[in-house]
Amino acid sequence: MSSTSDFAVRAAIVGLGITETGPVYGRSAADFAAQAVQLAVADAGLRMDDVDGLLVSSGVSGGVHIGLAGQLGLTDLRMLSHISQAGSTAGAQVQLAALAIAGGLATTIVCVHADAPLKPKVKSGDAYRQAAGGAAAGFAGLAMVAGPRTPTAGYALAARRHMNHYGTTSEQLGAIAVGQRQWASKNPQAFFREPITLEDHQASRWVVEPLHLLDCCMVSNGGVAVVVTSAERAQHLAQPPVHLWGCAQTHPGYRMERGSAWGLRSGAAISGPAAMAMAGITPRDVDVCEIYDCYTYTVLITLEDYGFCSKGEGGAFAASGALAPGGALPTNTGGGQLSSFYLWGMTPLSEAVIQVRGQGGERQVERHDVAVVSGNGGVLDFHSTLVLGAQPRA
Amino acid sequence: MSSTSDFAVRAAIVGLGITETGPVYGRSAADFAAQAVQLAVADAGLRMDDVDGLLVSSGVSGGVHIGLAGQLGLTDLRMLSHISQAGSTAGAQVQLAALAIAGGLATTIVCVHADAPLKPKVKSGDAYRQAAGGAAAGFAGLAMVAGPRTPTAGYALAARRHMNHYGTTSEQLGAIAVGQRQWASKNPQAFFREPITLEDHQASRWVVEPLHLLDCCMVSNGGVAVVVTSAERAQHLAQPPVHLWGCAQTHPGYRMERGSAWGLRSGAAISGPAAMAMAGITPRDVDVCEIYDCYTYTVLITLEDYGFCSKGEGGAFAASGALAPGGALPTNTGGGQLSSFYLWGMTPLSEAVIQVRGQGGERQVERHDVAVVSGNGGVLDFHSTLVLGAQPRA
Repeated sequence: MSSTSDFAVRAAIVGLGITETGPVYGRSAADFAAQAVQLAVADAGLRMDDVDGLLVSSGVSGGVHIGLAGQLGLTDLRMLSHISQAGSTAGAQVQLAALAIAGGLATTIVCVHADAPLKPKVKSGDAYRQAAGGAAAGFAGLAMVAGPRTPTAGYALAARRHMNHYGTTSEQLGAIAVGQRQWASKNPQAFFREPITLEDHQASRWVVEPLHLLDCCMVSNGGVAVVVTSAERAQHLAQPPVHLWGCAQTHPGYRMERGSAWGLRSGAAISGPAAMAMAGITPRDVDVCEIYDCYTYTVLITLEDYGFCSKGEGGAFAASGALAPGGALPTNTGGGQLSSFYLWGMTPLSEAVIQVRGQGGERQVERHDVAVVSGNGGVLDFHSTLVLGAQPRA
Repeated sequence: MSSTSDFAVRAAIVGLGITETGPVYGRSAADFAAQAVQLAVADAGLRMDDVDGLLVSSGVSGGVHIGLAGQLGLTDLRMLSHISQAGSTAGAQVQLAALAIAGGLATTIVCVHADAPLKPKVKSGDAYRQAAGGAAAGFAGLAMVAGPRTPTAGYALAARRHMNHYGTTSEQLGAIAVGQRQWASKNPQAFFREPITLEDHQASRWVVEPLHLLDCCMVSNGGVAVVVTSAERAQHLAQPPVHLWGCAQTHPGYRMERGSAWGLRSGAAISGPAAMAMAGITPRDVDVCEIYDCYTYTVLITLEDYGFCSKGEGGAFAASGALAPGGALPTNTGGGQLSSFYLWGMTPLSEAVIQVRGQGGERQVERHDVAVVSGNGGVLDFHSTLVLGAQPRA
């Protein structure tokens, strides 16, 4: 590469496929994945023959592996891998695809994630536990390495530390949930569309104190895929190109120890500025944010770490209404994982593609030239950032 | 990137760590992986603090995931992913590391693979089945997608087709096993070092006809890691740099159908020439080959597809003694997966690093300026190629 930040601008997202999501029963994760790939390729105006790279990711139910290429009848792929880095996976898939395109290894790479943990008579909250199985399997296992018995317990500790240190309140977290539900009410594909109030949030049961039920994402079945190709080729395809301006990952490895930054600061604090520097922008240039929201708290700490407000001011920023419809920083405009659907990093990424294209319908934000997308996994252990633009980067 | 083949030359392998391998009991795959990383970093003359990327891979026993970063105390990694593409994984890890280094995303990336399927009282042949568990899990599951109930059954069908079509014989496959055991007898770390004859090969029991026991790799516990950094920095570290000259992957997706190329031709036929073109070499320039040898047949078809002999002539080429000590094309100089140890693509990669450095002791080949390394997975479904050089690429 001629300079260190050249590879991103050579890539664009040109196709998006989203299957039915939510409690959709009787289909395997691999089936959702295959359908998502086919939808994304068709959306781009491409044929399956055009695909020469496939990066797959499974959710907690597993079952999506590189055999998907054979299932889809794809031949002579130049890239084919199962990528696993929890909620940071989708951002990493796009980053790897962009690197491979710039390196001349492949021209048309599909990134897909699918999951099917929900079954009839299995409640959302139990689906993760049942699908994950043993103590050390999947997402839950990653969190358990750090001590807590569930992801929610880990995030509850992190949120509590932020509250203690900065005075963040449950009502401020609630403002994030309420705002995202307002967005969801404008999204016909969102699972939860009925408006909620701050009182509803406060009255919802504790899952793990200080996290109420309405602070927590749902669990969904379904699949999402995006097609990445060269920025040049993107000009001639079926959809408005969504250009990659910058990307980064940072996996902090902070320990849950007194004196560490754990809970107060995440990988976003390095990954966000790095991706924005590559994109040649600052937070002021961002029109819309799609932030990984396994919990309301994750949105709050990510926005702080990205520099959209000062450190410790995330609660006040959210409570000001900035993130909700009509606010200064439209955030999680499809309703996010709290209200729309939960397919790890593909939830924020897919909504960013919709918004940058200008295809958001009733929820479309007016200015949508630059979007920031985050991915987060473990208990703040893994982070990825993408900066996307409606035009080629200047 | 300024041109499509620039990224490879910017990277070099500077560290290698190999744990104890074989029937080493009482340690988890994650433990082997952690030790391999530490050994590789120390071998490079680096400190763990220098590491800013980690690409992990588990064998059939699982248990190696991105939580390894936390186990090792690594902080603020800029790349952290579990990569899964069967026997092509090691080559893909190095390829992704090289892309990330050229793209400025990370400077020092460790690639690791570990496995621990062997247990006391579990025979090698049963370890895979037991570790893989359910029908669709892991390597065995990938093969089963295509029909056969074990990987060996799939490869037996493939070998049979090659025999029928080209007249390849079991004795010619045996020459590969015999030659590799000759190499292993010079390698103090190899598990099987006792010389074997062609008669021993022919007399060994069928596993799945036409594959004898001595056509099949062993199964091992253990871990291997390599450190990848920039070619520039490699000049100042503890070991002779092993430069990356070229790399490619091709995952053919051929079906096991009459009229298809399956069994006669593999992904190596595209991946090999692509990697050599990137490296600016032809097969005549190659001093030493480290070829993925889950079965003798895999060596044969890969050498043909890479162009080291004509298509269909692999049997005669092996029977000529070309691959054994003293032959024209030293191949699998540590004994390979048949005789030394079996840790997927890390077996050929680690031996290539040793040979290119000139650290092979009694088995060191005289000319070791250029090595070709292959990875293979599924039943010829997945393929990766690396070209490594003792000097920076011209």
